[in-house]
Amino acid sequence: MTQAGTSAPTLALVGATGAVGSVMIDILNERSAWPWGEVRLIASPRSAGKRIRVRGEELTVQALAPEVFDGVAVAMFDVPDEVSAHWAPIAAARGAIVVDNSGAFRMDPDVPLVVAEVNRDQIAEPPRGIIANPNCTTLSMMAALGALHGAFTLRELVVASYQAASGAGQSGVDQLYAELAAVAGKQVGVRGGDVREALAAAGLSVSDSLFGAPLVLNVIPAAGSYKQDGWFSEELKVRNESRKILGIPDLKVSATCVRVPVITTHSLAVHAVFAEPVTVAAAHEILSAQPSIVLVDDPAQGRYPMPADTVGADPTYVGRVRQALDFPNTLDFFVCGDNLRKGAALNTYEIAEALAG
Amino acid sequence: MTQAGTSAPTLALVGATGAVGSVMIDILNERSAWPWGEVRLIASPRSAGKRIRVRGEELTVQALAPEVFDGVAVAMFDVPDEVSAHWAPIAAARGAIVVDNSGAFRMDPDVPLVVAEVNRDQIAEPPRGIIANPNCTTLSMMAALGALHGAFTLRELVVASYQAASGAGQSGVDQLYAELAAVAGKQVGVRGGDVREALAAAGLSVSDSLFGAPLVLNVIPAAGSYKQDGWFSEELKVRNESRKILGIPDLKVSATCVRVPVITTHSLAVHAVFAEPVTVAAAHEILSAQPSIVLVDDPAQGRYPMPADTVGADPTYVGRVRQALDFPNTLDFFVCGDNLRKGAALNTYEIAEALAG
Repeated sequence: MTQAGTSAPTLALVGATGAVGSVMIDILNERSAWPWGEVRLIASPRSAGKRIRVRGEELTVQALAPEVFDGVAVAMFDVPDEVSAHWAPIAAARGAIVVDNSGAFRMDPDVPLVVAEVNRDQIAEPPRGIIANPNCTTLSMMAALGALHGAFTLRELVVASYQAASGAGQSGVDQLYAELAAVAGKQVGVRGGDVREALAAAGLSVSDSLFGAPLVLNVIPAAGSYKQDGWFSEELKVRNESRKILGIPDLKVSATCVRVPVITTHSLAVHAVFAEPVTVAAAHEILSAQPSIVLVDDPAQGRYPMPADTVGADPTYVGRVRQALDFPNTLDFFVCGDNLRKGAALNTYEIAEALAG
Repeated sequence: MTQAGTSAPTLALVGATGAVGSVMIDILNERSAWPWGEVRLIASPRSAGKRIRVRGEELTVQALAPEVFDGVAVAMFDVPDEVSAHWAPIAAARGAIVVDNSGAFRMDPDVPLVVAEVNRDQIAEPPRGIIANPNCTTLSMMAALGALHGAFTLRELVVASYQAASGAGQSGVDQLYAELAAVAGKQVGVRGGDVREALAAAGLSVSDSLFGAPLVLNVIPAAGSYKQDGWFSEELKVRNESRKILGIPDLKVSATCVRVPVITTHSLAVHAVFAEPVTVAAAHEILSAQPSIVLVDDPAQGRYPMPADTVGADPTYVGRVRQALDFPNTLDFFVCGDNLRKGAALNTYEIAEALAG
């Protein structure tokens, strides 16, 4: 996107002080290739003035305002939907290409929804100057499904998720840590050891918490906000975003999204039906060939993807690949991805980097 | 099974001192109807001599031996597979009807596999004198699926489980409590806070643990033992036992069984395809009419089944019932059942009680 002969492009990060924003700072500091000139860190006026070190230089966080986007080539947004909805078009009008990690624009037909490994070709000349990054749950399985779809043609998906507390932001993480401390050393989660009572005794409110229920020693079959006909927003995102990213408008999808007591890394149990015959050997070969996928699939030796082995890593981990016993052309598998990295900051940055290049 | 005019039948409990056995003692103590005369508590020689109070009377645990079954009408077995395989036929040869909670006989064509609400009619005159109780994961969804199958004719099942530590016995519970204590108050499960390192620092070995990996702040996509072609025993049990209990030999099933950091209660995300058209309203009506099911399904108000609200309770809890958006005749739902009660001890006892007449 930069013109030959001009200086290196300017990169802006909006939401630099949030949970995903701080992972983004890590990524900026670790990246070996570096196509950027100036970096601007932007946040709400409350966080303006903070100083954050990026690639050896101390930068001052600037308050969000129209003029901070002047001269910016690419602006990455990691802010709530309503903030993106308002500010991304302003940034685009000032000439920046926005890579937005909120849900505000994902289903806009004039906004490409991009996973770097799957449909990177769609980043060129976005009509509104905005490119959207998918929901972290959808994103965790997209590299694997994109590769398998290319070989076997995907028709149906049944997905159950095991989603981490950090998917709900830093307050979700804080809540789970507080709940862990409140139950540790106590005989709870058994008859006569009620989890809700143990948390209340420790002064922790769960009805007012982000999750509306205990998360420690529990699983909560609800993620996002309630929509209609029994569905939660996260489940509809898995369906609608998968269809758009993979370019399969009639893909059949049923998802059940469940929050589990894990800090970081979303996991998914995936049942994928294809048009063509499949084998585990062929799937292994396809998945192994993807640079962003690590195949961990030796279940007899206890080797399969797990959050404990995924946190902080860039790839998505795929394993438990097996041919369904009763369904033709069908693979069942399990996938884990760090929801803060590949699920959010990393994919956003990979798109930004592709725009620079 | 008792003859008119004889005294009340004798009930034996083999494995009286184990994790499920102690839940069974609770059930014996709480039951209002009481058809039994003598109760015999039986365990390994190591536990013989222990005294346990049953319905106001202190009973001495007897060591497992052929003669302890003389005069026993019904013997409930809650012991490992190999113990059942050896001793259940001995008890049956001495005249007892055995209700066995192990995996030793479940797929034997001469042994009925019974869920009290679904196929209680099969308990009469079992050919080998043995009736099997299903695996706790399968059992958690059987009351709901049996009722829905009766109305809509089940064809396909895709299931993902969220299984509790206690499904692996008391040592699984102890392991998870120890892991919880080891990580409480620490910033783990995040980048730079490795769960494995935190457990190792607390002197906890996970490679040697029952789960072979951390369970706290993690999910483990493996339950039971590894079989073949990528499948674990628990996943094959869900398939094979569901087919046998529901009497649908060609039922299509794919299951992914995952251990989660919950002490008690197995949860399942179920995608069920039927032959007949379905509606949520009809499903609600059918499920509400089952005495052993509690429908908890007001997601807009945060009401859905969760382990935290299920522990220690007899019913299975069903919610998140919705019509699949893209699959005809299909319901997605979420179910929770206390794996130690309905999933094991309670169903065994319900069969025993039905045998008592």
